[in-house]
Amino acid sequence: MFKRALVKPDGRTLDLYSRRPIPDGLEAPSPEKTRILPDPHMRWHPLRAEWVAYAGYRQNRTFLPPPEYNPLAPTRDPAHPTELPAGDYDAAVFENLFPTFAMSAADGPSLIVDTKPACGVCEVVVFTQDSGQSLGGLPLDHVELIVDVWADRYRELGQIPDVQYVMPFENRGVEVGVTLHHPHGQIYAYPFVPPVPARELAAQLEYFTTHARGLLENLIEKEIEDGRRMLYSTDRAVAFMPVCARYSYEVWVAPRRAAPSVADLDAAERREFARALKTVLMKFDRLWDRPFPYVMVFHQAPTDGQRHPEAHLHVEFYPAYRMRGRLKYLAGSELGAGVFTADTLPEEKAAELRAVEVSVE
Amino acid sequence: MFKRALVKPDGRTLDLYSRRPIPDGLEAPSPEKTRILPDPHMRWHPLRAEWVAYAGYRQNRTFLPPPEYNPLAPTRDPAHPTELPAGDYDAAVFENLFPTFAMSAADGPSLIVDTKPACGVCEVVVFTQDSGQSLGGLPLDHVELIVDVWADRYRELGQIPDVQYVMPFENRGVEVGVTLHHPHGQIYAYPFVPPVPARELAAQLEYFTTHARGLLENLIEKEIEDGRRMLYSTDRAVAFMPVCARYSYEVWVAPRRAAPSVADLDAAERREFARALKTVLMKFDRLWDRPFPYVMVFHQAPTDGQRHPEAHLHVEFYPAYRMRGRLKYLAGSELGAGVFTADTLPEEKAAELRAVEVSVE
Repeated sequence: MFKRALVKPDGRTLDLYSRRPIPDGLEAPSPEKTRILPDPHMRWHPLRAEWVAYAGYRQNRTFLPPPEYNPLAPTRDPAHPTELPAGDYDAAVFENLFPTFAMSAADGPSLIVDTKPACGVCEVVVFTQDSGQSLGGLPLDHVELIVDVWADRYRELGQIPDVQYVMPFENRGVEVGVTLHHPHGQIYAYPFVPPVPARELAAQLEYFTTHARGLLENLIEKEIEDGRRMLYSTDRAVAFMPVCARYSYEVWVAPRRAAPSVADLDAAERREFARALKTVLMKFDRLWDRPFPYVMVFHQAPTDGQRHPEAHLHVEFYPAYRMRGRLKYLAGSELGAGVFTADTLPEEKAAELRAVEVSVE
Repeated sequence: MFKRALVKPDGRTLDLYSRRPIPDGLEAPSPEKTRILPDPHMRWHPLRAEWVAYAGYRQNRTFLPPPEYNPLAPTRDPAHPTELPAGDYDAAVFENLFPTFAMSAADGPSLIVDTKPACGVCEVVVFTQDSGQSLGGLPLDHVELIVDVWADRYRELGQIPDVQYVMPFENRGVEVGVTLHHPHGQIYAYPFVPPVPARELAAQLEYFTTHARGLLENLIEKEIEDGRRMLYSTDRAVAFMPVCARYSYEVWVAPRRAAPSVADLDAAERREFARALKTVLMKFDRLWDRPFPYVMVFHQAPTDGQRHPEAHLHVEFYPAYRMRGRLKYLAGSELGAGVFTADTLPEEKAAELRAVEVSVE
């Protein structure tokens, strides 16, 4: 992996990544020359016992680009700079212009609940220069590079003292609210361990303490033995629809070994992890021969300075559709009670995805 | 409140409610004569430590009604019976034909995680016979009747030994996935205390144990003192946008007193609770002069046989839009991390709703 660290005129960072050496002389553009430093804050929700983040300036975006302008494509017209330079590189990561978490966060207003600066980092990960591509459509060694990028960001962001949890994710498709169709993901570096991973880590820690091995490691072994929901399986990585899938077509991708984070994978594991990921993404897109919308989320060890032998890296996909043409809406039971209700069985949905043949070279 | 308990030809219950005596001779219709007993099951999600419910038969609905057929309207044409009889009554409650939880639930399949029958009850609450109305558009004493209905259902469902939590809710609008536009809500009676109320009850219990008073009672007092986010306030009931609102236009309605459930409200409190509710609903619909889509959820004491002095009944509204014409999508941070990110401040959104004048008589 080759990397070049740059700084934009407005002070934001830009990191270029490539499978080949990156040529000299590339400069980091920015759609805006100057920048109002973001000052998001958090408020404590006393009933749910969780933080809520407020970034009021996000709605005041002054930037009005021409209609075909794509801020994630390399800059073609210097009069309309995008977020990326033209040049030979494969992927890029830069700080979000309107972040929900920022190291420049200020004290929140004085309120009737506790507030805190929403310290942290929000990054955009551009998977490729090609606007017409998708993560799953990239060559395997390019997907592998993206896995390396996630590992690099985990290490770098995790070293920031305020950052306790690094979460790469991808929102894909208008169905999940995406307006920029250039293939890209995001990374949120939170100043606390968020409620969902906190809950999963607690369950994993309890199991690890009692059984001296990993909860997910154990589940993966049973999934392999059962076999009905497996989509990919080698010595080093697996992809499967979990027996307790909350969404139709929900799929998890994980290393076999209980590696705590993407940065803990060795070279062979990364390659296999990339293959498993690409296999799933290709199956998704071939299922109905159309781009398959989803939210993809990394689950891994916090970067809170503690060791987390209980953590087992995995990626969860939450697809937008419950069947062809039918969206899954989260409503009363899911949003109000936290109880997911499915009208399809994981075994049936897994059979659909297993039947989709793809060839990953 | 007048009530008439009936049974449908397929064995499901139907309860009619009215402000006036209900005439004799009403019979309970059903779109289907016979019914395959629903057999939903639950699977344990070991990482999230929660139950997921599967009702596979829900997608196999054989019933194909004529295009204008509205199953929630009173039956006009005996050749096409709906769920309700024609006759003089205000509201009706019946068992969902395709429930996610059912007392007839069978043992789940033998799987690699724990399974359980998804025992419980799923009911439909038809607010009025008038398809063109809405909950907020009903006269105040009709809204009050609906509050009485929720109280009656809480008591009746809560007495079932398997039922530990009774949650009335309303999904309103195509934006939250609703296909039947006749004004109605639902009630889920769960065989466990679901994760969201469990978390809120734990926070409330901790506060109650330490301070000998209610967490929400305390928050309401502070909200009244602050005043900026209040939408309705009397000695007996309040409506406000909480300081820690996760959704734009999120509103809570609650009695001032820490009444554990809707069944614990006295007559004066019920009337005030209904007024607060109607005030909020009218403000929502007048804000953009169009029906305002939302998910409305009751939070109240479990029916697990324990006393819950820490619980404080309240209704939370989760609106679908974050501003006019812009939907709020739950994506990576909300679904994956459980961290809500808002790009508007509750004080600004509350000011918008406060400026909408409504008159509730």
